[in-house]
Amino acid sequence: MEYSIGIDLGGTDIKAGLLSESGEISCRLVMPTDADAGGKVVASRIAEAVLRVIEKAKTAGIDARDLVGIGIGSPGLIIAQTGVVHFSPNLEGWADVPLADYVKAELAELELPIFIDNDVNAMTLGELSHGAGVGLKNIVCLTLGTGVGGGVVIDGKVYHGSGNTAGELGHTVVIPDGRFCGCGNQGCLEAYAGARHIVERTIQKIESGRRSSLTHCLSDLTPKRISEAAQTGDELAVEILAETGRYIGIALTSVAHILNPQMAIIGGGIAEAGEKLLFEPIRAEVSKRAMDIPAKTMRIVKAQLGNDAGLVGAAMLAFQA
Amino acid sequence: MEYSIGIDLGGTDIKAGLLSESGEISCRLVMPTDADAGGKVVASRIAEAVLRVIEKAKTAGIDARDLVGIGIGSPGLIIAQTGVVHFSPNLEGWADVPLADYVKAELAELELPIFIDNDVNAMTLGELSHGAGVGLKNIVCLTLGTGVGGGVVIDGKVYHGSGNTAGELGHTVVIPDGRFCGCGNQGCLEAYAGARHIVERTIQKIESGRRSSLTHCLSDLTPKRISEAAQTGDELAVEILAETGRYIGIALTSVAHILNPQMAIIGGGIAEAGEKLLFEPIRAEVSKRAMDIPAKTMRIVKAQLGNDAGLVGAAMLAFQA
Repeated sequence: MEYSIGIDLGGTDIKAGLLSESGEISCRLVMPTDADAGGKVVASRIAEAVLRVIEKAKTAGIDARDLVGIGIGSPGLIIAQTGVVHFSPNLEGWADVPLADYVKAELAELELPIFIDNDVNAMTLGELSHGAGVGLKNIVCLTLGTGVGGGVVIDGKVYHGSGNTAGELGHTVVIPDGRFCGCGNQGCLEAYAGARHIVERTIQKIESGRRSSLTHCLSDLTPKRISEAAQTGDELAVEILAETGRYIGIALTSVAHILNPQMAIIGGGIAEAGEKLLFEPIRAEVSKRAMDIPAKTMRIVKAQLGNDAGLVGAAMLAFQA
Repeated sequence: MEYSIGIDLGGTDIKAGLLSESGEISCRLVMPTDADAGGKVVASRIAEAVLRVIEKAKTAGIDARDLVGIGIGSPGLIIAQTGVVHFSPNLEGWADVPLADYVKAELAELELPIFIDNDVNAMTLGELSHGAGVGLKNIVCLTLGTGVGGGVVIDGKVYHGSGNTAGELGHTVVIPDGRFCGCGNQGCLEAYAGARHIVERTIQKIESGRRSSLTHCLSDLTPKRISEAAQTGDELAVEILAETGRYIGIALTSVAHILNPQMAIIGGGIAEAGEKLLFEPIRAEVSKRAMDIPAKTMRIVKAQLGNDAGLVGAAMLAFQA
């Protein structure tokens, strides 16, 4: 059997694991990223993680010669062809870091090819190969977290666009004169469905006099708490999630009309709010707005791989190549 | 030299011509569509147009054996793989008409392959192969007419999506609670930049008391007249075009973030308003809103082939296959 090593690089942690082509994860480990120390240090951390995974694999009876490569999912704008991190809000101060080359130099003796892509593209590939999108050709992914990320799959392949920035579904314009987004634009989906923005929208409503069980925890409000309050029937929390669903539905209507995909896969923390609180409002908005055929073509479903999507997808970069 | 015959099927006219692979058009002709008579009659009209083009070609010394095929650009939702017109607002009453098969039956003795695609996809292919997009791989097209149509090119090919409806850029949501669109949605780009909507927006402003040289021709106002008034400095007309540009810019910002294309090609009547009145407001809006890299990647230019784009693209369907 063949294996690859997946690396899910985050601003805080490096997650690593050994994966078979069928998507099974073994020999997992997590270590701190230490992003502030810069690209070379992080590359040596990644190399260390790879060597430790290989060590674990050996004790599990797996031969290093069965490894086909190493795949890395990294936050930020990644030039996949050259393995460069152009920049990343989560890897502060990084500018055009040749991460793949650095890691390759650290692991020269392994003689393994190293692949790198944006973390949301990796998650998208994960969901396509072993998650909700298995067997499909044209899909989009949306990840709801601090930011709202996205990925586009065209004809079975993650699509990068002409400047490596395709798939930024979180920056589809939903309310042109609306809330300001971290990207500088006004009214992006992220400015309504990003974690901080969901919290701010909730606080604004409470401050304007709305009652809610969340009133006592305004200082450490999170989307998770809002979601939990909604589950227990808190009217304001239910409303905030339904509104979030509507904003996502507006963006997905534009996506459906532009790309006519088979499926929109939605993951990330707030997606855990579930069918009734989040997915039904999303679907209602799309079916209200979108033309018949694109609306019917696009199934809207929850991501299946949870936190593992990035790791699985990163490893699949190596199998895919 | 090889040739193909292009057919630009409209609700009113059938345009036909002989094209070389380099895009030169000869042996042109136009005949009425007679769409109300149904798909079979229109197919026989198309066949007649093809035979007349071949006749003209013969007198020009071109051998029918040098023909590689026939390409048809048709309005509506076209199932390109099977050559079926699923439906079309411009071909009233048509439902799942196997147009390619009908034409093939009429022209059986020619033994030529027949290709069909949506008219805006054909125009997009025309601009890609012989217009503003020559040599590019990832572009979008926008056509501003009665409706606002669009086409998406991914990796050098017109992208159809999973239900044959991809590229409906005119139905990108720009003002979610805005004007009602013919498609049933609220706030589509078409509801602001479609011909009727440009006229209505102008009339509304005049009725609300704005002064304009257009006041005397409200009953037969057209985008062309508005554009002409803007050229002579009419303030309201200039404003209407600038607003139209801003709406297009909002939609293209979403498109840039989702697809990161190299170029957005804009054609159709109102595109003739030109650089200063229309294209500068579009570019200003995109550069205000879109993230650096997608904004810089996407050149926004005027279509080059004018009314011939559909005919050229239709003929290229045959060369492409």
